[in-house]
Order: sequence, then structure tokens, then C-alpha cells
Amino acid sequence: MAYEFKTQRIVEFAETDMAGILHFSNYFRYMEAAEHAFFRSLGLSVHSGADSGACGAARLEAECSFRRPLCYEDVVDLHLLVKEKRTRSIAYQVVFRKDDEEVARGSMAVVFVSKVKGDGSLEAVPIPPEADALIEVAPAELL
Amino acid sequence: MAYEFKTQRIVEFAETDMAGILHFSNYFRYMEAAEHAFFRSLGLSVHSGADSGACGAARLEAECSFRRPLCYEDVVDLHLLVKEKRTRSIAYQVVFRKDDEEVARGSMAVVFVSKVKGDGSLEAVPIPPEADALIEVAPAELL
Amino acid sequence: MAYEFKTQRIVEFAETDMAGILHFSNYFRYMEAAEHAFFRSLGLSVHSGADSGACGAARLEAECSFRRPLCYEDVVDLHLLVKEKRTRSIAYQVVFRKDDEEVARGSMAVVFVSKVKGDGSLEAVPIPPEADALIEVAPAELL
Amino acid sequence: MAYEFKTQRIVEFAETDMAGILHFSNYFRYMEAAEHAFFRSLGLSVHSGADSGACGAARLEAECSFRRPLCYEDVVDLHLLVKEKRTRSIAYQVVFRKDDEEVARGSMAVVFVSKVKGDGSLEAVPIPPEADALIEVAPAELL
Repeated sequence: MAYEFKTQRIVEFAETDMAGILHFSNYFRYMEAAEHAFFRSLGLSVHSGADSGACGAARLEAECSFRRPLCYEDVVDLHLLVKEKRTRSIAYQVVFRKDDEEVARGSMAVVFVSKVKGDGSLEAVPIPPEADALIEVAPAELL
Repeated sequence: MAYEFKTQRIVEFAETDMAGILHFSNYFRYMEAAEHAFFRSLGLSVHSGADSGACGAARLEAECSFRRPLCYEDVVDLHLLVKEKRTRSIAYQVVFRKDDEEVARGSMAVVFVSKVKGDGSLEAVPIPPEADALIEVAPAELL
Repeated sequence: MAYEFKTQRIVEFAETDMAGILHFSNYFRYMEAAEHAFFRSLGLSVHSGADSGACGAARLEAECSFRRPLCYEDVVDLHLLVKEKRTRSIAYQVVFRKDDEEVARGSMAVVFVSKVKGDGSLEAVPIPPEADALIEVAPAELL
Repeated sequence: MAYEFKTQRIVEFAETDMAGILHFSNYFRYMEAAEHAFFRSLGLSVHSGADSGACGAARLEAECSFRRPLCYEDVVDLHLLVKEKRTRSIAYQVVFRKDDEEVARGSMAVVFVSKVKGDGSLEAVPIPPEADALIEVAPAELL
């Protein structure tokens, strides 16, 4: 069973803005990329196609607090933890660190969805069994 | 005195993802763009250059809840309201509607900053006086 | 018959980079958005769904030359012209102007595609008849 | 002396579009990121700050041809080669491969620039001497 994942990124030029720092919308992209890498580390994929029957994980809510800016070519350590797990959804916490100092902290809740054949709309479905079998909530003292 | 701003966008193809919907990171970009258009509507600009002495508004925190997905070419109405105003920061609420139905709701708090000459770091500064004179908190019943 | 389309955008903060200018990848997004707005102006949509049978326009090639940078809140006039039209593809030219001065010029060729049922791969298809009936190549003296 | 650089990326969810493939604007971001990683591999940085006196590399032109689409979680090999070197500019070619098959090929020319103190505009400057000493044009048979 897995409840955390660590990864590292380097801030790219195209992700900065005219204030010279990582644009805040990219923290949310980093969080999602960490979630997806977490799944890959378990031999799974969050999204299985864009076609009928495709399933994936839609965001229910996302938030992030920013303590210190990140700049071009900064190396960022991301620490993802599973905060909560329900039948159809998982909530994650992601801590961003630079040189061991916390620079931002976010969370997001995702619901598993499947495309309804025909109209292409999305409906909530249970966590896929392979993922359900491998993912657990992190110990409270880590959150 | 102004406490709200309304604007409209159309979801662009490049903003969608393989799930066929507006990628969630773009809701944060939309919120920021609404804040900036609000300032322009008052004859102001949030950011006044990328050079020394430049000032702008850095995000302290941002969050969004997603109720229904938005798709390519959907017309989205954004309603920005000033939730809170302090010496150096402003908090906004943004409601996203499609065909008069609320599809998402977010908020963000921004702190006004100025680039420190020399090292280029950012320091918090009071709300610029022109903005302070024109912006007020929205009536509680609207929030 | 239509062979051109004009539109205007304002450079958003999230589209700038730490050099203080519109990041070059966004010129390509602007070009595509102009193409899509051109189709909307004809009562058409370039993309008709993410599901089986979905069709759209895939890029074959794209290029852009940059003469002068664009900055935050610059108002940009885009002038799209149909350069070439074949059975399955259209090539566009887009000129970017600020205050009537050309600041960039790009082009892109797109092929119409449809999703193959089953494997979800893309195959080239003729220009949809509604689009074919309304779109023509611009007079040579405009290109 | 160095004339090439190889790197690898995995296509992220946020980089796909509703057609289920890597959005074409991201190939240009990948090319730039490869250029920047090339500089880092030489102990250099393309951009040295957003402030006065900052220098960097502005795009003069960029183009890309797309042969086969890339999808979510595809592993892409990028091969960057120095095509041309002048006093103030460098042109690169980047080949994109998936499973050893070429899927796209692009090029871009960049001019080295410095921020003019005072008005913050950009002026072309010679290739920084450290970079000039380490970078050479690739052998013709590789291009």
C-alpha cells in the first residue's frame, strides 16, 4: 500500500511570468503531475484514453498557499500525500520545498469519472480496483 | 468606489485537455485575468513593469471548487467580487457561470509587492493609493 | 465566401515570461484561436467533440517570425488570411500588429482529421463540406 | 566544444488538448526547454534575471513540422543540434522521437539580448563569451 510520492522538478522559463517567478497557476499543474507520477509509480495511469469509456480523475476542488516565490531554474521538491480516500474520490496534499524549506502547500480532491457513451458527459465512478488496492491514507502525523 | 467586475470568456481549444474539458489550472488564470480586467476598468494596471521598482500583486493563496465541467467554445460569465481589503492585500471571490448556472467558484488573496532594487526580491507594500481610493469591499449579502 | 478574419486580444499576465514579454509559444496559441474564431464567424466549429467520430484540425506545420516583443496589456490586432486550400488541408497566414505596426508574422497548415472508431487514432479526411463551401483562398496581393 | 544535447520528457496531462494529443504549442515549449537544459549542461544559464542588465535569448523565429501525434504519458526523446552560430544569434534544430521514430522536427533562431537600463527595452548583444567559447555548429552530416 502506498500513501506518498516524492518527485522533483526544475522551474522552466515558459512557466515564469513578468514578475520573474513561477506563475501561480503552474503550482496546480505541478500538483496534478505529481499525482499522475504517483500513479505511474504504482504501475497505473490516471487517464486511460480520450474516447468512449475513457476514465480519469476530475478535480472537485484545489487550493494552494504560497509562502515564497520560485524562480527560473529553481529545483523544487514535491511531496504528495494521500489525505483522504472515499469510494469515488481521493484528496491529496502536496508540499513544495526548495532547499528543504517549505515554499508552498496545496491540496486537491479528485473524483474518478468515466465518459458516458453517447453524450460524452462525465459520471462519477468508484476508484478503479487496481488503484483502490494499492493506495491508502497517509498516517495522520505526516499531514 | 468599485467592488465587483463582470466579464465573459470563451473556452479556447488550447485550454482544454484530453478529458475534453477546460483544464482546471485555467480557472486560476481566468480568475487572475478577471482581477486584472477589473483594475483596467478603473483606469489602473496591476503590474507596472518587470524592472526595478516594478510593482504588482503576488498571490498568497488561491482555491477553486468545480461543480460542472466547461467545454471548448463554452461561453463563461465571470463575476468577481472584493471579499476583503487590508493594508497590503485584497481577497477576491470569482463565480463562474454558464447559461446562468454556477459551474465553479474560486477565491484568491493577493498581496501588493514591489521589487527591491539590487537583489530583485519582492517585498510587500501598501495597496497603491489610486487603487485604494477606488476599491471597496462588496456588501456582505453579495458574497 | 470568406478568406480572412480580424480579431483583437490583450496580452494577459499569465502569458508573459520573466523577460517581461509575451512568451513565444503563445503566438501559436493566438494563431489557433484566430483560426477557431474565423470558423465561428462562419457559423462553424473546428472541433466537434472529443469522442468517437470527433473531427477537428490537426497541425501539420507552424512557424512564426518575431520582430518586436509584445508586453502585458498590449492590444494586438490579428489578421488571418487563407493562404492555401487543398482537399484535406488549409494553410493560414497570421499577421500580428500593435498600433498598426507589424510585430510578428506566422503561418500554419492544418489537416482535417477524424477519430477512427476503435483505436482512437486520427485519420485525414476531406475539409467538411460546410467549411469547404464557405472558405476560399485570399487574393494573392493580400498575402 | 558542444554542438548537441539529448533529453527526454513525458507528456503531461495538462499539455494535452481535447483531441487527446500534445497541444502543438507545447512542442515549442519543449524546444526551448531543451535549449535551456543544453546551457545548464555546460554550466551556463540562458537567462540571468528579470531585472535591469538582465540578459537572455529572445526568439527570432520558430517553426515545427508534426508527423505523428504524441499522447499522454508518451516518452519523447529530444535531440537538439546547433545549426548555425553568428555573432549575436544561434539557430537550433530539434528532432522529436518516440520509440526511435521521428514524430516531429522543429527549429528556432534566438538572438541574445540585454535589457536597456531605464526603459527596459531589449537590445541585441553578442553571444556571452562563456557560451561562445563552449558552443559550436554541429557537423553538416548530422543536420
